[in-house]
Amino acid sequence: MNSSNPGFLDIIFQRKSVRHFVEKPVSKDDLMIMVKAGMAAPSARNEQPWAFIVLTDRYMLNQLGEGLPYAKMLYFAGAAFIVCGDTSIIIEEGKAGLWQQDCAAATENILLAAESLNLGAVWTAVHPYIKRESHVRNILHLPDHIIPFCVIPVGYPTGEDVPKDKFDSRKIHWGKW
Amino acid sequence: MNSSNPGFLDIIFQRKSVRHFVEKPVSKDDLMIMVKAGMAAPSARNEQPWAFIVLTDRYMLNQLGEGLPYAKMLYFAGAAFIVCGDTSIIIEEGKAGLWQQDCAAATENILLAAESLNLGAVWTAVHPYIKRESHVRNILHLPDHIIPFCVIPVGYPTGEDVPKDKFDSRKIHWGKW
Repeated sequence: MNSSNPGFLDIIFQRKSVRHFVEKPVSKDDLMIMVKAGMAAPSARNEQPWAFIVLTDRYMLNQLGEGLPYAKMLYFAGAAFIVCGDTSIIIEEGKAGLWQQDCAAATENILLAAESLNLGAVWTAVHPYIKRESHVRNILHLPDHIIPFCVIPVGYPTGEDVPKDKFDSRKIHWGKW
Repeated sequence: MNSSNPGFLDIIFQRKSVRHFVEKPVSKDDLMIMVKAGMAAPSARNEQPWAFIVLTDRYMLNQLGEGLPYAKMLYFAGAAFIVCGDTSIIIEEGKAGLWQQDCAAATENILLAAESLNLGAVWTAVHPYIKRESHVRNILHLPDHIIPFCVIPVGYPTGEDVPKDKFDSRKIHWGKW
């Protein structure tokens, strides 16, 4: 390992989907660090076509969870981010797929920042599932130009979720396919 | 800042799109670390629908650059990753958009790992641009089930590329839209 920052690589490899949380609030400072990390992601043509909703209210978190079959951990999470695509920012029509790539990069940054703060988080997909999008849109009264991309429940982990080793040398092709 | 790993957050905020490289090869060890970081990304239903091609051959890098209008830095890069979607892995039809999200998360991990290794890298989009996809497919003789998602030139930075501060408080919505 010729790493100038091994601690950083640890975070990448230690990150896991955390679905079990202890009952403890997440500080606004930590939430701000995570959302800043999201905004530090790259985006196509530097459009930054994203917006972030941050929820900590128990009632709102529960409401959100009710319509999201794979985000029931919202009932126990201290907070959640809703990463959204802002279609009013996207400059070039017909290249619309790229906002999803940008939001995915921002989401990964948030997940890694959570890990570095000893928090746990999990990426639950919303887009392109129409029913999930409608639910989030309704609960949060989103304007039409805002597309909910994913919901990230976040909180202090119980410790039962552990990282997976997903290394698979067959997926690496050196020099050619 | 209540960070348990401030070095990690530095990497997130210091990462930039590096488009200018000095002529110096990238070690296979470092390339392996970066591709491992890519594979440590989350994916929908843990499908890991990705594959990674790693190029270091000057002729191949140049060939790839010839057909990619925004990836001319390949002429100077020490190496490149081609992140691909493997459609043979995707279990559920009709949810095909998610492989792009997964590949984007893997791409962001590679970019961050590059930054942590004092290397520089830049995400150049291939999918969903048909002409770019055809070019990469032809140069690399990709099978039909493999979709080239992006090309990441990587190398030692000249230092002229610097991070952007993209923080914008108007994009954060606390508690509600």
